[in-house]
Amino acid sequence: MSRRTGAVTMHDVAARAGVSIKTVSNVLNGYQYIRPATKEKVETAIADLGYQVNLTARNLRRGRTGLIGLAVPELSLPYFAELADSVIRAAEARGLTVLIEQTGSVRERELEVLTGQRRHLTDGLIFSPLELGPQDVDALDVDYPMVLLGERIFGGPADHVTMSNVDGAKAAVRHLLDQGRRRIAVVGAHEGETVGSAALRMQGYREALEDAGLGVDPALIGEAGLWHRATGAEAMHRLLDSGVELDAVFGLNDALALGALHALHARRIDVPEQIAVIGWDDIEETAYSSPTLSTVSPGREQIARTAVDLLLARIDDPDSDRPYERVIADFTIVGRESTLGDAAPEVAPLVAVAR
Amino acid sequence: MSRRTGAVTMHDVAARAGVSIKTVSNVLNGYQYIRPATKEKVETAIADLGYQVNLTARNLRRGRTGLIGLAVPELSLPYFAELADSVIRAAEARGLTVLIEQTGSVRERELEVLTGQRRHLTDGLIFSPLELGPQDVDALDVDYPMVLLGERIFGGPADHVTMSNVDGAKAAVRHLLDQGRRRIAVVGAHEGETVGSAALRMQGYREALEDAGLGVDPALIGEAGLWHRATGAEAMHRLLDSGVELDAVFGLNDALALGALHALHARRIDVPEQIAVIGWDDIEETAYSSPTLSTVSPGREQIARTAVDLLLARIDDPDSDRPYERVIADFTIVGRESTLGDAAPEVAPLVAVAR
Repeated sequence: MSRRTGAVTMHDVAARAGVSIKTVSNVLNGYQYIRPATKEKVETAIADLGYQVNLTARNLRRGRTGLIGLAVPELSLPYFAELADSVIRAAEARGLTVLIEQTGSVRERELEVLTGQRRHLTDGLIFSPLELGPQDVDALDVDYPMVLLGERIFGGPADHVTMSNVDGAKAAVRHLLDQGRRRIAVVGAHEGETVGSAALRMQGYREALEDAGLGVDPALIGEAGLWHRATGAEAMHRLLDSGVELDAVFGLNDALALGALHALHARRIDVPEQIAVIGWDDIEETAYSSPTLSTVSPGREQIARTAVDLLLARIDDPDSDRPYERVIADFTIVGRESTLGDAAPEVAPLVAVAR
Repeated sequence: MSRRTGAVTMHDVAARAGVSIKTVSNVLNGYQYIRPATKEKVETAIADLGYQVNLTARNLRRGRTGLIGLAVPELSLPYFAELADSVIRAAEARGLTVLIEQTGSVRERELEVLTGQRRHLTDGLIFSPLELGPQDVDALDVDYPMVLLGERIFGGPADHVTMSNVDGAKAAVRHLLDQGRRRIAVVGAHEGETVGSAALRMQGYREALEDAGLGVDPALIGEAGLWHRATGAEAMHRLLDSGVELDAVFGLNDALALGALHALHARRIDVPEQIAVIGWDDIEETAYSSPTLSTVSPGREQIARTAVDLLLARIDDPDSDRPYERVIADFTIVGRESTLGDAAPEVAPLVAVAR
């Protein structure tokens, strides 16, 4: 919409400053070889007249919109809301506005994010798919700057920032083993899946048990398709109903673990006395739940900052043949009441710094 | 960015279809007086060539971008993340994409949202200010469609969707009185403020106490500037440290109430046996906390849908002199364990439907 700039034009600014339109344009575009006195005259005229640059027209000239896209599955999942917050702050610090799109974890909408016409409005895209997989790697071969987040697709034609899934899960299970737990259940497994966060965190779970000389008991593996509080509670109830013996639960994300806590509370099972619980994501809620939730902090701030920086580097140098980078964020284990009980510190310190 | 459309132009489509560029343009713009055979030829050519409309150029012609802005204080506050989710879904159902901007509750950023150059990229704005107030009503007199959310500014030059703050707060306090509570504290008051959610909810608190023949004891009013979990916990600790006698707490939002719950848990105070707690917002977390949190459900879905509909009506008819509307959303009291204890139903029903 250009109504807002209708009143004052570049012609008006030029006339007021007593310079050519070309000179006004040079000032607006930050051209460096302009005499300071001329620059000041133009800037004074701009201020006096309240002239506003038509950003659409200007960006069309520069080939930039100053906007970047961030496509996430669901803002109502706290991890993605907090990630969006971090990306917005990192982008703001670099003068960029973030256009957030929500895919709802629907495959068609994830493909539409890549090819949709609103890509013309953004200079680049930070994309966290949940449904696309290795078979979709061709769809990722886009002709605009993009940074991938998540664990769905590795080796795709884009820079990629990912969590340390296997090692983080190993450390989480080791933390439970360190508290003397031996019957460690999982909530949130995806049976048969070989890609994605669930598969990788399950690999870490298995490796930690094997390192401790323990086997994996399939009766302890709780499935949950969506990683929400509700599905975590349901999976926990199913495990308890099955009668399997357990003394700890690893929720593959915090929403699942908080749902599991809710189910344990409803059944008057003491956490961590009878069953210890650990999650993954370190969303703010985990520091306030009752009991407070131990979790894996997967480096959200680092992920956001790195993604924005990688994207900006591609935007600034679109023809670079620099190879695609893969950055794995640092993680930490945050020990709280749900595993440490009364021994948990008032403000939980970082139990282990990884990598 | 126009690289994506660089390969195929409207000229190519016209040549392939054997029609004029004007005809292609008419088809693309949905012009209705086109012979079906001609329309089909053009559409076939578009499909064969993989032509993509340049949305930027097209919207500049139509004066629309298909984007609406949503400016909220903080996505890391669950209420605003869940509100954004609801607005995105309501907008998607109407073919609109939402550009989310975060102001961080900074006054300058809230003013920038109104005047910033990215307003040229959106057809309209849904704006939830937290810092602007009645003195800023002139800044709201913008020349693009806008819908206001929240309680900071009434009678401004825009359609406005608001919560039922006074009545909702009265109902919340009445719910506590119905459980036999008489010493009802508040967490989240803003001393001296006469506008905004805090002032209105405090008015409802006072009116409910007066209706019950009780007075307001200033010692029971806990201040908290930001409405976060951390500030709620701090305010609760201060109230308890003061030694004032209390048997219930009204958190002016859920984050504050969840922070208060956390503080009570840390001090081994039983909720609701010793102190009952109610919040405001009905964020998902309240159905999973331990104990589950009673709260005021302020009609988030209705607020989102109404705001999008009001905005679309203004976008579709920008020159309408229809007076500005003010819509007050319906609220409900959701009774859970933090006030009802073991009497709380497994899935809390709506205790009272208001208005």
